[in-house]
Amino acid sequence: MKTYRERSREELLAMKEELEAEYKKFQERGLKLDMSRGKPSAEQLDISMGMMDVLSSSAQLKCREGVDCRNYGVIDGIQEAKELLADLIEVPADKIIIYGNSSLNVMYDTVARSMTHGVCGSTPWCRLPEVKFLCPVPGYDRHFAITEYFGIQMINIPMTPDGPDMDLVERLVSEDASVKGIWCVPKYSNPQGITYSDETVRRFARLSPAAEDFRIYWDNAYNVHHLYEDEQDTILEILEECERAGNPDLVYKFSSTSKISFPGSGVAAISASLRNLKDIKKQMSVQTIGHDKVNQLRHVRFFKNLAGIQQHMMKHAAIMRPKFEAVLEILERELGGLEIGSWLKPRGGYFISFDSLDGCAKAIVARAKEAGVVMTGAGATYPYGKDPHDSNIRIAPSFPPLEELIQATELFVICVKLVSIEKLLGDMQAS
Amino acid sequence: MKTYRERSREELLAMKEELEAEYKKFQERGLKLDMSRGKPSAEQLDISMGMMDVLSSSAQLKCREGVDCRNYGVIDGIQEAKELLADLIEVPADKIIIYGNSSLNVMYDTVARSMTHGVCGSTPWCRLPEVKFLCPVPGYDRHFAITEYFGIQMINIPMTPDGPDMDLVERLVSEDASVKGIWCVPKYSNPQGITYSDETVRRFARLSPAAEDFRIYWDNAYNVHHLYEDEQDTILEILEECERAGNPDLVYKFSSTSKISFPGSGVAAISASLRNLKDIKKQMSVQTIGHDKVNQLRHVRFFKNLAGIQQHMMKHAAIMRPKFEAVLEILERELGGLEIGSWLKPRGGYFISFDSLDGCAKAIVARAKEAGVVMTGAGATYPYGKDPHDSNIRIAPSFPPLEELIQATELFVICVKLVSIEKLLGDMQAS
Repeated sequence: MKTYRERSREELLAMKEELEAEYKKFQERGLKLDMSRGKPSAEQLDISMGMMDVLSSSAQLKCREGVDCRNYGVIDGIQEAKELLADLIEVPADKIIIYGNSSLNVMYDTVARSMTHGVCGSTPWCRLPEVKFLCPVPGYDRHFAITEYFGIQMINIPMTPDGPDMDLVERLVSEDASVKGIWCVPKYSNPQGITYSDETVRRFARLSPAAEDFRIYWDNAYNVHHLYEDEQDTILEILEECERAGNPDLVYKFSSTSKISFPGSGVAAISASLRNLKDIKKQMSVQTIGHDKVNQLRHVRFFKNLAGIQQHMMKHAAIMRPKFEAVLEILERELGGLEIGSWLKPRGGYFISFDSLDGCAKAIVARAKEAGVVMTGAGATYPYGKDPHDSNIRIAPSFPPLEELIQATELFVICVKLVSIEKLLGDMQAS
Repeated sequence: MKTYRERSREELLAMKEELEAEYKKFQERGLKLDMSRGKPSAEQLDISMGMMDVLSSSAQLKCREGVDCRNYGVIDGIQEAKELLADLIEVPADKIIIYGNSSLNVMYDTVARSMTHGVCGSTPWCRLPEVKFLCPVPGYDRHFAITEYFGIQMINIPMTPDGPDMDLVERLVSEDASVKGIWCVPKYSNPQGITYSDETVRRFARLSPAAEDFRIYWDNAYNVHHLYEDEQDTILEILEECERAGNPDLVYKFSSTSKISFPGSGVAAISASLRNLKDIKKQMSVQTIGHDKVNQLRHVRFFKNLAGIQQHMMKHAAIMRPKFEAVLEILERELGGLEIGSWLKPRGGYFISFDSLDGCAKAIVARAKEAGVVMTGAGATYPYGKDPHDSNIRIAPSFPPLEELIQATELFVICVKLVSIEKLLGDMQAS
């Protein structure tokens, strides 16, 4: 098979005509499909419905410590929720705080607190002339939105198959005291599905930051979000590695049950050294009387323990796997060998990351949209929404039913082909 | 009956001896009672247990707009929750945002956002040399804790039976551009149970602040928290009054269902002008994907409408009323006419505010504690925990069962008498 670049102008024009016809047929179908966000499907939500019935008598609403979970109090979470979430993210139960429904909100609060109050006694960031964050790219748009909102300067760090480019990270962190943090999704990363290698995690733990208030923002969003029962990524536990490296305070580890139970009605957590947790609790005690303990208890009663979560995640996997496989099959079948796009085959997480030819991503997403398929906005995976190569597109296969997902992906590959041909034709004209 | 001041030294010493014996008897009982916080009792929590069973099938988890409440999305609350809460706090449903479980957290966020981002485009407060808040006293310790945490200077404003001293408020707000806010609990105020008069509300609405980013922080915590079915306080609706006065942006109105359904697992809200809400939503969209919609829906399905909430509140009143009456009866019986303390008789809310002789509050609370009764710390009702007269004590009758509350109050009046006698004896010695 010829690659697109090996095709003559005439061949490309002929192919374009055919593709335009196929595209038009899609348009006529009046599709309304959404592959934009990492939302679980209704089918996935149904497997957690048992949660709605585990607390129905007053007696059931007392937690193990005897606290009435319906009332005020217990600011950092009930003990059994701490144990469940701690097991989930592989940390000791005394190094965790349980929050409300959103780990994004916990991350926001962490940055906001650093702005107004500094980190463990450091100068509040709002008093500094400049604050910078490192942003492995492609990455998660909502992370970048937080740092952008606070006027924090973001620096792109290229991702490699082993995680962020650690040579660059080490250099910037050790040389520049205005670098205060790095956003990481270390396992089944958003959007590439990459899991950081042991060496990468160890290099993170051994960082020597110029800034005392530098922290790694370790968003453990997809820790148990495997697609397969037998092929699962594993990752070194960062808190332990940081302790071992003599840097116990270096990391904040965020997590939640959002894509385990109900997104929006889950339970979030932060894990960190006791010194960091003490710093955080000073704020928390002013911010709230306590988070929703009834919901914490609901999760504990439903999942029971880590094994319960793991079994539950295999039900999610059974729903997600065919969707990922369908997208990957279509990409491979339609685009394999054409050299107009590349992608990774993740073993977990919520996304497939697609890289088009340079300068094509925006046009591909626009084309898809005009035919009724909404993708994540091109550029969204980069700080400030600016993909310097205009090539990365995040595919989110989870939400649409399989049938719709197949249609959407078939349209997507047509768009990729069309836009790529247009680009190649343009290049020919220019040269 | 003689007042304590009319007693001779000998009489006081004899009374003291008797009271010490009574106090000792209490100590020997080894009580462990808590009148410190405005926590509903277990009996009150039980009346909301029906909430645990209203959502048990997938179909029930769709809200009126067809949104699956289990999934991500709908950042400012589902429409039917907006309507319920809007009715509750007497505002239009388009002027409200539904949050998570804690209105305190909403207030915290409001101040935090003003620190880092200003108010509707004003200079962020963290860049100003000085920011001040007016604090009607006695007031709510958790309000003061927020402003203290952010280094905001707090200025005491005396409360009158009609609300804060408006002459002073008007003068400070119009003269000093560093005054950016005032904390108000306008109905059944914490701790006095005072409801602001119509004239007070109108004067609030007509304020002419020197600062464009001045806002009234109107914590509508006890809007429907009456003690009686027939004798209820009413208050003018502040948003409407502000609009009428040509000051639509002047107020943030906070509320929650914390003491209606389950504290810690309720639903909070902010109501404000559309301009203010737009400013707030800019932050929210960065801070979270959305709050817990399942819990919003749970509240809507359980309460149905405002009438449902009002009926429900009468069940709370039936439990609270005997407790308030018991405390007031003991205060009146034991302290009436002695001129060693004064208190108001609230018609709603969660507290009875007691004023001892100057310089006695700390000692009274300490005495009570030594005999096993925990009260709110003396001074807590003032900014920085500093009651300039050391006289205000907040009594929270809601949590203990009636029998225990009676014991605790009987001990309390003994402590008041003892400490007052000690003070009067000291005064005699000094003069």
